[in-house]
Amino acid sequence: MTETVETRPRDEVYLSTVRRAFALFPSGVVSLVAAVDGHEVGMVASSFTVGVSADPPLVSVAIQRTSTSWPRLRAAASIGVSGFAEDQAALARQMAGPDRDRRFEGVTLLSTRSDARFVEGAATWFECTVHDEVDAGDHTVAFLEVVAVRTAEALRPLVCQGSGFHRIAP
Amino acid sequence: MTETVETRPRDEVYLSTVRRAFALFPSGVVSLVAAVDGHEVGMVASSFTVGVSADPPLVSVAIQRTSTSWPRLRAAASIGVSGFAEDQAALARQMAGPDRDRRFEGVTLLSTRSDARFVEGAATWFECTVHDEVDAGDHTVAFLEVVAVRTAEALRPLVCQGSGFHRIAP
Repeated sequence: MTETVETRPRDEVYLSTVRRAFALFPSGVVSLVAAVDGHEVGMVASSFTVGVSADPPLVSVAIQRTSTSWPRLRAAASIGVSGFAEDQAALARQMAGPDRDRRFEGVTLLSTRSDARFVEGAATWFECTVHDEVDAGDHTVAFLEVVAVRTAEALRPLVCQGSGFHRIAP
Repeated sequence: MTETVETRPRDEVYLSTVRRAFALFPSGVVSLVAAVDGHEVGMVASSFTVGVSADPPLVSVAIQRTSTSWPRLRAAASIGVSGFAEDQAALARQMAGPDRDRRFEGVTLLSTRSDARFVEGAATWFECTVHDEVDAGDHTVAFLEVVAVRTAEALRPLVCQGSGFHRIAP
């Protein structure tokens, strides 16, 4: 068994070991999309967390301070969070890509009466407004309030783990 | 396909629909354990998030305001976070149980030179100190700094989804 133990000092070796350990921990994968000034703005996050609060119903997402998408997204009246389904790994990769013009190529987005946009075929949809933002190290953590929800219980979620995308075992 | 769409008003029907939607989103499962005044104190969380910050390396966990374990845990010099492995579902259920005296029955805990205690056989271990705490609705979100890490890359993580525990498909 490959076993790695690292403790501080907080040098580059330590930080890269922690990053690899973070990658081994499983998470869901979401897109956050909204129409801003007539254009769709989107980002993909694997640091999205549900159940941060039950009442008001809050979710959270950690965003790099250097993100250029978040300052635009947060200005929308509401943001569409789509939890990718197990058959959407390629879509998640494309929407997470560096080429912003290609992120939405061939992606069917569903509109709401507000600014939120959802990815067709996703397993869970949360329409969210920004509740609060706090600093956390080199990231900003946004707490979002869920103002509408849709679930497709027959669809299983995509799981991010070990730098790859996976399905849950049947 | 069972599809549920709910929007506000924020009544009990809406909140319970959101709770069910939250349960459908996948997450890892961790225990947080420390020795406090000579006794092991522990809790299990499915709202644990890695990669909240890269430098300093931060993770987060959302804790109900009514938790009686967290006020004791947060007083420890460091807290051991163990990410359960796929074969530890029964252990996770036991450690999440209401009977505090039985939580550690038969559980092998590994000690550190500090207060952190880890569950033997877990897939990932993060030794953490409390970096910050913020209010988020009816929960407190604790940001924890990772001061030591251990990974067992051959072990796959346990995934919590749809009110049950699952394995990642091979």
